[in-house]
Amino acid sequence: MNKRPDIDQMVNRLFSGDRRATARLITWVEDGMEETREAMRRIYPRTGKAKIIGITGAGGAGKSTLTDHLIRKFREQDKTVGVVLVDPSSPFSGGAFLGDRIRLQNHSQDDGVYIRSMASRGYLGGLSRATYDVIRIIEAMGAEVVIVETLGAGQDEIDVIHIAHTCLLVVTPGMGDDIQAMKAGIMEIATIIVLNKADLEGANACLRHLNTTLSAASFEEGEWVPKVIPTVSVGGKPQDIQGIDELISAIQEHHAHLQKTDAIDQIKSERVEHELGLIFKDELQKLIFKGLKGTGRKKRYIENIVKGKDDPYSVVDEVLKTYIKTKE
Amino acid sequence: MNKRPDIDQMVNRLFSGDRRATARLITWVEDGMEETREAMRRIYPRTGKAKIIGITGAGGAGKSTLTDHLIRKFREQDKTVGVVLVDPSSPFSGGAFLGDRIRLQNHSQDDGVYIRSMASRGYLGGLSRATYDVIRIIEAMGAEVVIVETLGAGQDEIDVIHIAHTCLLVVTPGMGDDIQAMKAGIMEIATIIVLNKADLEGANACLRHLNTTLSAASFEEGEWVPKVIPTVSVGGKPQDIQGIDELISAIQEHHAHLQKTDAIDQIKSERVEHELGLIFKDELQKLIFKGLKGTGRKKRYIENIVKGKDDPYSVVDEVLKTYIKTKE
Repeated sequence: MNKRPDIDQMVNRLFSGDRRATARLITWVEDGMEETREAMRRIYPRTGKAKIIGITGAGGAGKSTLTDHLIRKFREQDKTVGVVLVDPSSPFSGGAFLGDRIRLQNHSQDDGVYIRSMASRGYLGGLSRATYDVIRIIEAMGAEVVIVETLGAGQDEIDVIHIAHTCLLVVTPGMGDDIQAMKAGIMEIATIIVLNKADLEGANACLRHLNTTLSAASFEEGEWVPKVIPTVSVGGKPQDIQGIDELISAIQEHHAHLQKTDAIDQIKSERVEHELGLIFKDELQKLIFKGLKGTGRKKRYIENIVKGKDDPYSVVDEVLKTYIKTKE
Repeated sequence: MNKRPDIDQMVNRLFSGDRRATARLITWVEDGMEETREAMRRIYPRTGKAKIIGITGAGGAGKSTLTDHLIRKFREQDKTVGVVLVDPSSPFSGGAFLGDRIRLQNHSQDDGVYIRSMASRGYLGGLSRATYDVIRIIEAMGAEVVIVETLGAGQDEIDVIHIAHTCLLVVTPGMGDDIQAMKAGIMEIATIIVLNKADLEGANACLRHLNTTLSAASFEEGEWVPKVIPTVSVGGKPQDIQGIDELISAIQEHHAHLQKTDAIDQIKSERVEHELGLIFKDELQKLIFKGLKGTGRKKRYIENIVKGKDDPYSVVDEVLKTYIKTKE
């Protein structure tokens, strides 16, 4: 029989930067282990300081190559870097992701870099909830910058991007026609738009179009106006990319803007509010379903609904009356 | 000032097949109107009989053209048809969907067809929760068959497909290499695999590959084995498609299989359990947040967490203790 894992020991090993403990704790999150909650409670106070950078964009836009170069740049600045790769696990996503992972192996010998893939589905409390926890674990391990890379398709993945403080939206000239359609999305999500593969045909037109779109939008006084940074990358070596210094500058500029305007506090409050809501829902559901378990009530409720004798709204009312205090 | 909408009147108009009332009720769902809950409670007993057919597959696979032909076929059988189109609203999805919508205008003069688009995001209780409600409304209006079409990317959209009784996964020969990767997904999702554009190069190899994959998989005695149906469609006219009769036959065969094996009851139980869980979460969250609202407590909690004086897990515990009866 397995012993109950020692939460104290595991968390202390995490705080000392132990990679195996980090991996194990992330697996706890992914498996929905009962111990996760207590571990996260202890980890939480050690978090909240890292810069969280999101990278999103369609498949093939070059997100992983950019992530690779960003890691190198942050390492040159002597910053420890964590990376969370959210792998789409749709049956239609195909097998393109192994290549991305191989690209990031440049950093596999570097103790200052920790990279972890997560599947985009299969989490009881949802992908965002799990991603919050994984980012916090990696931060508590010691990462000063955490990069979260995700394909921006589907509500869950877009929610993940909302965890980031600075969000890079990677587009390519081939997407030209789509940019009109994504206007609203750009404004909502991107702090920096990276026009990757800027050596391709149509890049100049695309760049003009992006800048026109941005200048036509209205921003409030003091509000951050998304920047467009063209990049060209032909490989994984330092000399293989153009525009990376400009991109790093833009990230730093956005960070300085957040500090200066206190916007970082607002972002952090919003993130905490969102995270709090997710934890609430999760814990509430566990509690109620635990209460129903073994009583046979849940099965009876479902049978009655299927047979048309009852409806889910009335059932929920009845159960809530049993469990919720209406007055304190 | 707007009067409170008359739920009784609206629901009665729905039951009489009124299209404007149907549209209005769906808008209530989308807007998260308070009245939705009571309306859905009344609608619920009139639902549960329609065949729900899901159509999913990558963009450009030809889902909408197939939907168009399926509508026509069901109409030839004198069945009333509802269609729910879940439009991906990712900023990266581009503007390809207008074309799909135009394709379905063939049926705009037919009183026996009701078509509604839904955005894939922005629902408080989540996309699945909203889709359940929308399907039920369309069914209560009188639809005997409800087709749900969705791009199968992202957890939310995959969840939507799990609402269907019969699921068509549309693939094209061009996806050849991806099929290996989607093996697990095929088995999990598809009851019928439609190999569309079966006149393209590589179609035969793709067909062989799909059949090999399926015959290598193990199924339990009496379990449905996914069928592969090749189709070729060159336009929206009845003569413009090959394979549609075989597809309709396969759908009917699957339906007969569900009836014969009582699998339909199991599917309906699973759907109700899922729906019940979603409603629970939603109602619980509303209740708790309503309790916190105006007390200033939520804001204080968030501030303390951001400042590192508290963590979300402890806050959730504290609030739950206030609201949840631990013993009946």
